[in-house]
Amino acid sequence: MPNVFGKLFTISTWGESHGGGVGVVIDGCPPNLPLSAEDIQPELARRRPGQSEITTPRKEMDEVQILSGVYEGKTTGTPISMLVFNKDARPGAYSEMKEKFRPSHADYTYQSKYGHRNPEGGGRSSARETIGRVAAGAVAKKILQMAGTKVETLAYVSRIHDIAMPGETAVSAEAIEANIVRCPHAETAEAMIERIKEARSQGDSVGGVVECRIRNLPVGLGEPVFDRFEADLGKAMLSLPATKGFEVGSGFEGTLLKGSEHNDLFENREGVVRTKTNLSGGVQGGITNGEDVVFRVAFKPTATILQKQATVDLQGKETTLMGRGRHDPCVVPRAVPIVEAMANLVIVDHLMRQHAQNRLFSFEA
Amino acid sequence: MPNVFGKLFTISTWGESHGGGVGVVIDGCPPNLPLSAEDIQPELARRRPGQSEITTPRKEMDEVQILSGVYEGKTTGTPISMLVFNKDARPGAYSEMKEKFRPSHADYTYQSKYGHRNPEGGGRSSARETIGRVAAGAVAKKILQMAGTKVETLAYVSRIHDIAMPGETAVSAEAIEANIVRCPHAETAEAMIERIKEARSQGDSVGGVVECRIRNLPVGLGEPVFDRFEADLGKAMLSLPATKGFEVGSGFEGTLLKGSEHNDLFENREGVVRTKTNLSGGVQGGITNGEDVVFRVAFKPTATILQKQATVDLQGKETTLMGRGRHDPCVVPRAVPIVEAMANLVIVDHLMRQHAQNRLFSFEA
Amino acid sequence: MPNVFGKLFTISTWGESHGGGVGVVIDGCPPNLPLSAEDIQPELARRRPGQSEITTPRKEMDEVQILSGVYEGKTTGTPISMLVFNKDARPGAYSEMKEKFRPSHADYTYQSKYGHRNPEGGGRSSARETIGRVAAGAVAKKILQMAGTKVETLAYVSRIHDIAMPGETAVSAEAIEANIVRCPHAETAEAMIERIKEARSQGDSVGGVVECRIRNLPVGLGEPVFDRFEADLGKAMLSLPATKGFEVGSGFEGTLLKGSEHNDLFENREGVVRTKTNLSGGVQGGITNGEDVVFRVAFKPTATILQKQATVDLQGKETTLMGRGRHDPCVVPRAVPIVEAMANLVIVDHLMRQHAQNRLFSFEA
Amino acid sequence: MPNVFGKLFTISTWGESHGGGVGVVIDGCPPNLPLSAEDIQPELARRRPGQSEITTPRKEMDEVQILSGVYEGKTTGTPISMLVFNKDARPGAYSEMKEKFRPSHADYTYQSKYGHRNPEGGGRSSARETIGRVAAGAVAKKILQMAGTKVETLAYVSRIHDIAMPGETAVSAEAIEANIVRCPHAETAEAMIERIKEARSQGDSVGGVVECRIRNLPVGLGEPVFDRFEADLGKAMLSLPATKGFEVGSGFEGTLLKGSEHNDLFENREGVVRTKTNLSGGVQGGITNGEDVVFRVAFKPTATILQKQATVDLQGKETTLMGRGRHDPCVVPRAVPIVEAMANLVIVDHLMRQHAQNRLFSFEA
Repeated sequence: MPNVFGKLFTISTWGESHGGGVGVVIDGCPPNLPLSAEDIQPELARRRPGQSEITTPRKEMDEVQILSGVYEGKTTGTPISMLVFNKDARPGAYSEMKEKFRPSHADYTYQSKYGHRNPEGGGRSSARETIGRVAAGAVAKKILQMAGTKVETLAYVSRIHDIAMPGETAVSAEAIEANIVRCPHAETAEAMIERIKEARSQGDSVGGVVECRIRNLPVGLGEPVFDRFEADLGKAMLSLPATKGFEVGSGFEGTLLKGSEHNDLFENREGVVRTKTNLSGGVQGGITNGEDVVFRVAFKPTATILQKQATVDLQGKETTLMGRGRHDPCVVPRAVPIVEAMANLVIVDHLMRQHAQNRLFSFEA
Repeated sequence: MPNVFGKLFTISTWGESHGGGVGVVIDGCPPNLPLSAEDIQPELARRRPGQSEITTPRKEMDEVQILSGVYEGKTTGTPISMLVFNKDARPGAYSEMKEKFRPSHADYTYQSKYGHRNPEGGGRSSARETIGRVAAGAVAKKILQMAGTKVETLAYVSRIHDIAMPGETAVSAEAIEANIVRCPHAETAEAMIERIKEARSQGDSVGGVVECRIRNLPVGLGEPVFDRFEADLGKAMLSLPATKGFEVGSGFEGTLLKGSEHNDLFENREGVVRTKTNLSGGVQGGITNGEDVVFRVAFKPTATILQKQATVDLQGKETTLMGRGRHDPCVVPRAVPIVEAMANLVIVDHLMRQHAQNRLFSFEA
Repeated sequence: MPNVFGKLFTISTWGESHGGGVGVVIDGCPPNLPLSAEDIQPELARRRPGQSEITTPRKEMDEVQILSGVYEGKTTGTPISMLVFNKDARPGAYSEMKEKFRPSHADYTYQSKYGHRNPEGGGRSSARETIGRVAAGAVAKKILQMAGTKVETLAYVSRIHDIAMPGETAVSAEAIEANIVRCPHAETAEAMIERIKEARSQGDSVGGVVECRIRNLPVGLGEPVFDRFEADLGKAMLSLPATKGFEVGSGFEGTLLKGSEHNDLFENREGVVRTKTNLSGGVQGGITNGEDVVFRVAFKPTATILQKQATVDLQGKETTLMGRGRHDPCVVPRAVPIVEAMANLVIVDHLMRQHAQNRLFSFEA
Repeated sequence: MPNVFGKLFTISTWGESHGGGVGVVIDGCPPNLPLSAEDIQPELARRRPGQSEITTPRKEMDEVQILSGVYEGKTTGTPISMLVFNKDARPGAYSEMKEKFRPSHADYTYQSKYGHRNPEGGGRSSARETIGRVAAGAVAKKILQMAGTKVETLAYVSRIHDIAMPGETAVSAEAIEANIVRCPHAETAEAMIERIKEARSQGDSVGGVVECRIRNLPVGLGEPVFDRFEADLGKAMLSLPATKGFEVGSGFEGTLLKGSEHNDLFENREGVVRTKTNLSGGVQGGITNGEDVVFRVAFKPTATILQKQATVDLQGKETTLMGRGRHDPCVVPRAVPIVEAMANLVIVDHLMRQHAQNRLFSFEA
């Protein structure tokens, strides 16, 4: 089941960039959750193309339809099928891509793996696939809200190219959405936007880093050994198009510290066990410890650039390809809601798993 | 199944640091593979404690027994159960740890998650659990060898604390095993060893980075969307104790490049489609492209240090804990065979998956 | 993932009887398979309501749309999403069912399990869900055909109420489809049809048995221990609405024989190892042995009858309910293509599993 | 993972009849459950060979060791590894079986599937594998007891060959264990024992039916569509050696009734919704309805008989084989604790699943 994610709250996405549409089936959603398209649409709006001057101009409103699993405005516990039809597809624009492999895209590997692919807009490898993830993530977010948890998942752009946000920036949903690049530090955001525009004007592209902070998670999420909370988060993030790295807490920088500098000492803060520092990034032994879970995801510069590049064709003959088509000069701002969605999916899945094994039965003397 | 890894070639590990023993069950191993304990033992020897002056002095020979799945020297296709008994356990040494949580260890999170834990040597959260992984990885390695593939998985220490190996170092199995820190650059290795000894003499610890290079992988491994090759590798690595980050190819550094600098242009090299550069790290769209798969894993400094640290006890009362017990001042050298093992498990699993879906049936006109 | 079936060739169904529609996502389909709606529609036609005078008069043409996973007439190896919109829904007809539980239906158990349900036409518990299974089964059937296997899966009605087909009846696709009850014995079929009409005229219903024979299966399908071929077949069949039993080969009757009567002796028939008899039903130790796999499935009489029955309402108060709504007086004839579909799904899944573990690698001296 | 059963409470069995031993790893067991070998041993005693004059004389005490997952007498929530060493193995006794396929055994299919097998005592296909299941089932049973549920799973022999227990027999654990054939009807039990002895004296064997009744299950277990409670039970039972059929409630007999005779009418019995009859067998729409779950499993006559039978050898040449070796003339009495074990595993797994999806979150206005 390569296209399924999650163990108890599972999602199965389908669809291609220019096929009939894209969608997702959620299996395992709790019943009685108030749910309608209005809960989904705002998250899709944060992801959709054409939302600002620094994204691709492809015009898709990405209107979601809920086809099953909801009755009289509440979930029934049965699979929730959601669908977005593709509208602004331009199949004709991709005739050259059918014959030539775009550098650092998935054209060559899909062709080699399957021997047949839908080349239009990248087909299945298009980031358009993430619509299903975002729609499902919106359901996960609604669960966390309606169940009365205070879990808050905030992703934001912490770096574009070499322009980084100051480390001490206060983070809030409002500050993130206050600008089109989704960096909560206003001044840095402006510089980031300029950098993206500059790259676009050069027919080039830039990458960057999305940081995510999850607040108010309960202690105890994550399974020892393989399904550690950060391992599942890491897989979720590394499954996103254009990602090249994932780190939690101190990450790669933390390897420059000594144990005496890196350890998070415990203290009792108003009756609650807490750590004085949080280099662990909210997980110890693969299990959440009640501190903020903080992680970062590296997104490479967009592979599509408006420049002539050397490549080969279907027959392996060397040739050149001039980039065209509508694309984002930087995918990082639109990745923000996708990172949040994946994180929320992991959280709900692990809440269910923790509960099933460790909270259902009680064995007291 | 939190303690199961893999979809077709699956492993299930069990055991605690000071319980009866540790082990693994491999499910899905192909039949007719010549296999005996002699295939497993060398990899366990690379992982075992007490192997050199920079590792913990705990004395465990880690002798493996194969209890099932092999008949007359060859696998039968049924589950392979392997077991290593614990010998040099010192349960008494852990009485203080039963009451007090060691900082940046899993004591507090396990206690909170389960309400009951085996505190001796860290119990299930001990790196001793990885014996099962290494034993299973040795079987995966044997499969790759005996099946005639030329796949070669080489992990090595590329950085200890702030001492990094030069980027252009030639890598070979011999060079890696030529020194106790497992860095293929001899001069750097010496400096690394000194840094580890220095940390130990201060009752402190250091971390570092393991890099891994997989050569001669076929094109086409990895599944689009969720089970990307690098996503599964990332999960595998992030499931190891003490890891804080994973990156493939250009990784976090790659986000400082522009698309025109980052794209790997295709060329035809002696009849084979190759890329001129390999910033992708051997994967495009989640699928291997025939170039070396290169990834890096960040390991934090060992949490156990021989210093008095602030912490809390089972009742949440603040106290201090003086580190003791045998431990590694740096886990990175012993992590090398573990990283290789996990990588080989992912490779065999994905070979099977690729074959089942895309090579079993052929539909020709 | 309660709504997912299969391990390598997996299907995920969604949808309710009177919601927006019903559908299925196939994950793991091999690429390059020629596929269009024309391959699916004939199987749906065999399943659809209103197909004959002994089925429900609900008018649904059940036209399938393929929304993804196919490009230029061939599968791409990515998920195949198929959708059938509901047309002839009469939500108003179910107002009483919203308040009162229909006896021997799933109304009470769904209500108890989820606290909320779609009562229209039975919602998710409606046999309309099986559209997704039949559509997916048609793809599995196409795989078996196009891959050049000679596997032939033939299900048929062997008994309606107490009217049973003679045991020695010759079975062919043509004979099965030659009459509306799908019994290959023409004379028996007529009597069966009369029995169904008689039941309907009394406002009553009848059940029966579907037998299925799978020819030309390769030796070696099925996994020892849990995923035995017949165990997976059994689960597949017992997951169908209205089923109460499953047996393979000699089944329950076989328990009346002694070992000396029941054993299938081996012989060499024209160079092939065969058994003289086939009381095993084509499986030994959970693995196919090259003989026909023969199994039977018991379907209870339709729970919906046009009679007043005692029941309780949502508040647990005793009341009566007069059956109404369009329904089948006997579900067995329409179950035939569904049984075939599920069998074909199990076959393709096990072919992939067998190949991945036991045919991919070869270890020869 | 062919050797894994269950989704949340999972077991993974390993081992062969005459290899080093047999065992099981339980993954997902709740923590804090008091557990020791004394909880397991009685169930193994009910399953072990040599327990009475109508079973095989092979002498195995089947002493279980718990190697992990328990600390200071209570489970820790980590994998429980349990092991039974083989003692009374007689590898030499199987030299003929290495060359010739025993009729109606798994010798030929294993050989064909894997190309290599352990022939001693049937290797992996031996019923000795069920030791792991029974050990795991004992843990599931302990969970149900200690968690304060009143769930009671009682399996018993309802028929041996053509000797059937009266339908109205009262069933209790005491009555079942009061005789060596495990039929709760004393008089019938005597006749059954005679029939088994008679078969043995003829060098022959007999089969029969195990019926199982699960009392006091909560309403709501089982998932609609694929993972129906009875579908998972059915798969569990059909995964046992020598089974040929499974039915729930009215089963195959129920197909001889009309809907008006078969429907279970609801009533309110002392404030609880109940059904007047229970032809559904405790499940409706795949979900438990609070009535007893009643199912039956068909076991064929033992394939090993002490008679000369026609067969073929490894080269496909026709030959004869004289049955020998220690065996049960009827496996049905020893199957009773195995059926109970599998049922209890399914129950605990579904309790966890139901709780995770439908009881963890509450969404109230």
